[in-house]
Amino acid sequence: MCATSGAKLRVAVAGATGYAGAGCVQLLMAHPDVEVVQVGSRSQSGRRHQDVYPGSTCSLELTPEVDAARCDAVLSALPPGEAALSAGTWLAQGAVVIDVAADFRLRDPAAYRAWYGHDHPAPELLDRAVVALPELDPEGIDGASLLALPGCFSTAAILACGPAAMAHLVEPQVVVDAKTGTSGAGRQADSGHLFAELNESVRAYAVAGHRHRPEMEQTLSQLGGEEFGVTFVPHLTPMTRGIVATCYLRLRAGAGREEVRAAYRARYQAAPFVALVEQAAPSKLASHTNLCFISVEVQGPHLVVCAVLDNLGRGASSQAVQVLNQRFGMALTAGLEAAPQWP
Amino acid sequence: MCATSGAKLRVAVAGATGYAGAGCVQLLMAHPDVEVVQVGSRSQSGRRHQDVYPGSTCSLELTPEVDAARCDAVLSALPPGEAALSAGTWLAQGAVVIDVAADFRLRDPAAYRAWYGHDHPAPELLDRAVVALPELDPEGIDGASLLALPGCFSTAAILACGPAAMAHLVEPQVVVDAKTGTSGAGRQADSGHLFAELNESVRAYAVAGHRHRPEMEQTLSQLGGEEFGVTFVPHLTPMTRGIVATCYLRLRAGAGREEVRAAYRARYQAAPFVALVEQAAPSKLASHTNLCFISVEVQGPHLVVCAVLDNLGRGASSQAVQVLNQRFGMALTAGLEAAPQWP
Amino acid sequence: MCATSGAKLRVAVAGATGYAGAGCVQLLMAHPDVEVVQVGSRSQSGRRHQDVYPGSTCSLELTPEVDAARCDAVLSALPPGEAALSAGTWLAQGAVVIDVAADFRLRDPAAYRAWYGHDHPAPELLDRAVVALPELDPEGIDGASLLALPGCFSTAAILACGPAAMAHLVEPQVVVDAKTGTSGAGRQADSGHLFAELNESVRAYAVAGHRHRPEMEQTLSQLGGEEFGVTFVPHLTPMTRGIVATCYLRLRAGAGREEVRAAYRARYQAAPFVALVEQAAPSKLASHTNLCFISVEVQGPHLVVCAVLDNLGRGASSQAVQVLNQRFGMALTAGLEAAPQWP
Amino acid sequence: MCATSGAKLRVAVAGATGYAGAGCVQLLMAHPDVEVVQVGSRSQSGRRHQDVYPGSTCSLELTPEVDAARCDAVLSALPPGEAALSAGTWLAQGAVVIDVAADFRLRDPAAYRAWYGHDHPAPELLDRAVVALPELDPEGIDGASLLALPGCFSTAAILACGPAAMAHLVEPQVVVDAKTGTSGAGRQADSGHLFAELNESVRAYAVAGHRHRPEMEQTLSQLGGEEFGVTFVPHLTPMTRGIVATCYLRLRAGAGREEVRAAYRARYQAAPFVALVEQAAPSKLASHTNLCFISVEVQGPHLVVCAVLDNLGRGASSQAVQVLNQRFGMALTAGLEAAPQWP
Repeated sequence: MCATSGAKLRVAVAGATGYAGAGCVQLLMAHPDVEVVQVGSRSQSGRRHQDVYPGSTCSLELTPEVDAARCDAVLSALPPGEAALSAGTWLAQGAVVIDVAADFRLRDPAAYRAWYGHDHPAPELLDRAVVALPELDPEGIDGASLLALPGCFSTAAILACGPAAMAHLVEPQVVVDAKTGTSGAGRQADSGHLFAELNESVRAYAVAGHRHRPEMEQTLSQLGGEEFGVTFVPHLTPMTRGIVATCYLRLRAGAGREEVRAAYRARYQAAPFVALVEQAAPSKLASHTNLCFISVEVQGPHLVVCAVLDNLGRGASSQAVQVLNQRFGMALTAGLEAAPQWP
Repeated sequence: MCATSGAKLRVAVAGATGYAGAGCVQLLMAHPDVEVVQVGSRSQSGRRHQDVYPGSTCSLELTPEVDAARCDAVLSALPPGEAALSAGTWLAQGAVVIDVAADFRLRDPAAYRAWYGHDHPAPELLDRAVVALPELDPEGIDGASLLALPGCFSTAAILACGPAAMAHLVEPQVVVDAKTGTSGAGRQADSGHLFAELNESVRAYAVAGHRHRPEMEQTLSQLGGEEFGVTFVPHLTPMTRGIVATCYLRLRAGAGREEVRAAYRARYQAAPFVALVEQAAPSKLASHTNLCFISVEVQGPHLVVCAVLDNLGRGASSQAVQVLNQRFGMALTAGLEAAPQWP
Repeated sequence: MCATSGAKLRVAVAGATGYAGAGCVQLLMAHPDVEVVQVGSRSQSGRRHQDVYPGSTCSLELTPEVDAARCDAVLSALPPGEAALSAGTWLAQGAVVIDVAADFRLRDPAAYRAWYGHDHPAPELLDRAVVALPELDPEGIDGASLLALPGCFSTAAILACGPAAMAHLVEPQVVVDAKTGTSGAGRQADSGHLFAELNESVRAYAVAGHRHRPEMEQTLSQLGGEEFGVTFVPHLTPMTRGIVATCYLRLRAGAGREEVRAAYRARYQAAPFVALVEQAAPSKLASHTNLCFISVEVQGPHLVVCAVLDNLGRGASSQAVQVLNQRFGMALTAGLEAAPQWP
Repeated sequence: MCATSGAKLRVAVAGATGYAGAGCVQLLMAHPDVEVVQVGSRSQSGRRHQDVYPGSTCSLELTPEVDAARCDAVLSALPPGEAALSAGTWLAQGAVVIDVAADFRLRDPAAYRAWYGHDHPAPELLDRAVVALPELDPEGIDGASLLALPGCFSTAAILACGPAAMAHLVEPQVVVDAKTGTSGAGRQADSGHLFAELNESVRAYAVAGHRHRPEMEQTLSQLGGEEFGVTFVPHLTPMTRGIVATCYLRLRAGAGREEVRAAYRARYQAAPFVALVEQAAPSKLASHTNLCFISVEVQGPHLVVCAVLDNLGRGASSQAVQVLNQRFGMALTAGLEAAPQWP
């Protein structure tokens, strides 16, 4: 791989002017082992990235499509449904594809149809797709050519519940109550996401069911080796970045607080991007980092696990870089050394 | 009662310079059937209310104690533990006492000791205390002389779960995940509640157990006629006012979405301060009002009920006025006509 | 007038689903002497107001146009340029017209063309238009049939600088530095006003010149009887409601702090909606009220006057009701009794 | 110097648990040429830095005093008045002292007394003190042993007005209207800085005069070679980090927009931490960086210059590192490479 041969890894970012894509660009511009070789944007093509996106340090001209023959990897932050239209071509041209969006997360085309309302645009690729779980299933990433990042909520819920599921300490029915910053909705104009509509306000949405729920169920079932059901309700809160996923799991008979904590320590003690903390972390502590803070507590019959991360960082851009690092054998923390800054 | 005799009800507010007490003062100053006759504050006595509290329209001088012999009712917003020291005197002087704080919410002195860390200061009064539930148990209020308001979180959880519990539609084990504005912590100096510490951040707290949990358990058990357990986790969110309590209840066999909705409609259709809504309401819609917006949905095995209110309004000051209205036979909405203002 | 004859004043609101228009509707629904008889919206016609706008208490069906023959007054909160197209008809039908937007603020059609980039749509009406200054020129309102409200920034700047100009205490060259909440931009979708773009951020805009500047210059020149120049820079701040206009004026020789304060007291002491305060007020104190808080201080050669108001209240909706009250001889505070609520 | 000899520069941070001090620690921990050898805190001594300050990566134990004999430089973020008590000792022990606070900014002990209300604690050191102006007077820093950083507001105002003053393009009387985030008040408990008091609110303070005003006047007079007067009003805005200083200067006869812009380009084109921009920047763009964005515009008779920076970054911690780099001949951008991240 180029990272070991001395040459830099050549990476293209498709969908480079949304929050997630631009975040990838900014991180990769400062990555010691990566060269950003192309930035794609259909709506802004012809302009330079730094003339379009505030604070960008990338002076490349945006192109409507990326040419995967000229790079080692494509990070796609295209809108849902669009990566699936291009991924086949990118793969055929020899690039590894990492999709930040939702196109390759669900293995079952029927589940995709049920949750997205239309047939999957490229069902023939689903068998090649791997959901990236860098702490819980790093081997799954190693040889993969088509990698899907879990959604921002799913990342939090899986990191929170995975160790308990893998150790069979909890019943396979979980409540995930998540609080998110508003940037998860992206940068497109929307009167419902105006500052004046959202400040000083919290609200639940998608209470009858959100698309990240089947992702959580699929992955927890895989990790736990039994069928998991998830009840998931996201809430919009008046902050830009951050997710707090509070997960309520029923302890199985015989499983207690210390046993559970030991299981989490065993799973995460060597993980550079997961911090086990005694008190639930404030979400701002994770802001602009790739860190996920996890706290484990027992209240009544429930194990309560809080996972805290930056929805645009560990929930999107920096997780993409983490997976890129893992996939190409680069240092796991390369380009991701940003420490918390308070306040 | 004076309200029916033409004279105004004479009300004293103890603890009148905190957020909850000052809110009571401001509402009562505009109440057509009430005269504010005393405002108490130990820390600020000797100054006029409007010289102490921003925007106050009350020019009375603050006194260290209130003289219950000169009024029909005392609304106490004293800090926890202090109302219990004065309530006996107030009652002996013939006033009705309404406590916004926590001193008279738990019936069992042992539970009080367990959750508050010391013996109850006035256990002999606990038998006289009634937890005010104006929609779910209005008769309980009518003859009472010592009324306790449920806590802000408890008010939301009880309004959310009460109808299902009373109709025996759910298992008696509930998860309450609440999101609150920061004003619930009051106005005293605290570096943890500085703007710089809280903005752009959400965090869970009291994950091992919060004092409002036993209130919820006591009241839901009473309403449901069976022992309810509650797992309750509050979250601090970057807004000043508002609570969203998202409650997860397991439906009993045979109970479905429409049956549940019918139970809620039956309970609340005539209630002026509870609005059943199709979509979970944004908390800002309740801001500065006495309204509680409730939405009822089913996801998987769970009934998900969201209760949305203003923690300083329906969660404290305006609920105190609502209970005062109910107790003294005044119009239920007197002084509480404020409609939502958006944005 | 109907207000004196016992019948209620019949008012139509055009543009009733934007922030300013819906604010007028909500205030008028609770006004003791007004009946809202029509609510207009081109984009939402056919739906009921309360099904379109959060928290509305108005169940009228929205109509694409308002019929001025059926009402005594039309409050127009139509977008800039649209009221001018309808005002002639409304006036011909006998209604008094109050325009919240900018169409009738500038007397000079050439100035309108210079600042708005096109010819005025109804220049023949400009002679009839009166800019409403309820505290500084109440007589101007009394017989007027076509009333323009000053812009939100202009209202603050005029209330701040007017008394000094009228008393000839300052040089006729003013710096107005204003900070506004984001709701001034309205409710239409705009990626630049997303929460994620605006929170944790302040920025100046229109630094080369903003359309409210010629309004300020026109009115201050009229009030002062000499040509005033204004340098005006607005700033977008991360709050929903509120304006703080900090005005820097050079004191004329012989004019000192006490002389200036006396002039402000003389002008405002009987004004129910202007509060002279010792310390500059926090903008939240004015939120959801019609109040303007004004503080007067001297620093070096400058008189520094801060005017603080709610851009959607005194800067738009509630000022429209204040002008309506003045114009129709109703009680000045009718429908506008809302007192500050803190926090 | 150690930086050139291969050894790392040994730096102590006094006052390491406030926002400014902890920011210095976090930046220096990642600085390639610096070793943090001591962290001081009187209130928290005996605890490790990372156990006291959220997100800290520094595991050193806090000591009540720092031992300047063991380091090359002391960065002091002690509260006002305290650095002056220790600086003499630190200097005698051979360390270079950089004070983030206000003790050594004013040259004139009488001015210090007038603005701070007491005599200067160490007037004998004032002659040795140099106010650090890394872009406008880098030579001043080079041999200095006692360096004072300008205040956060002063830094913005000086960077905004300095080039015009140095080029004699403006009259020597300036209006500086600044908007700041709340973190400038520090981390100590204060009910006036609670989230609930500050959110959704902007207010002016210190309208009669703020301590940063004489700093601005002293430095602009020095740079311009004539006596400058400043009228300065700061405003508290609902954000954590950020300053926007909007400066109004009267152009001298013959000075126009292009001439002014040329002067700013000449001064800043090689400066790595000053970005000249066409539109006034949103303050969030500077957040967590050392950048100052400056825009230059003309409106009427005024030159309007906006300077935008992070009050805890370029206004405190990262400016301290910038000055350290300059003083010790390290790369100017070492440890300060953080690029903007949006949103």
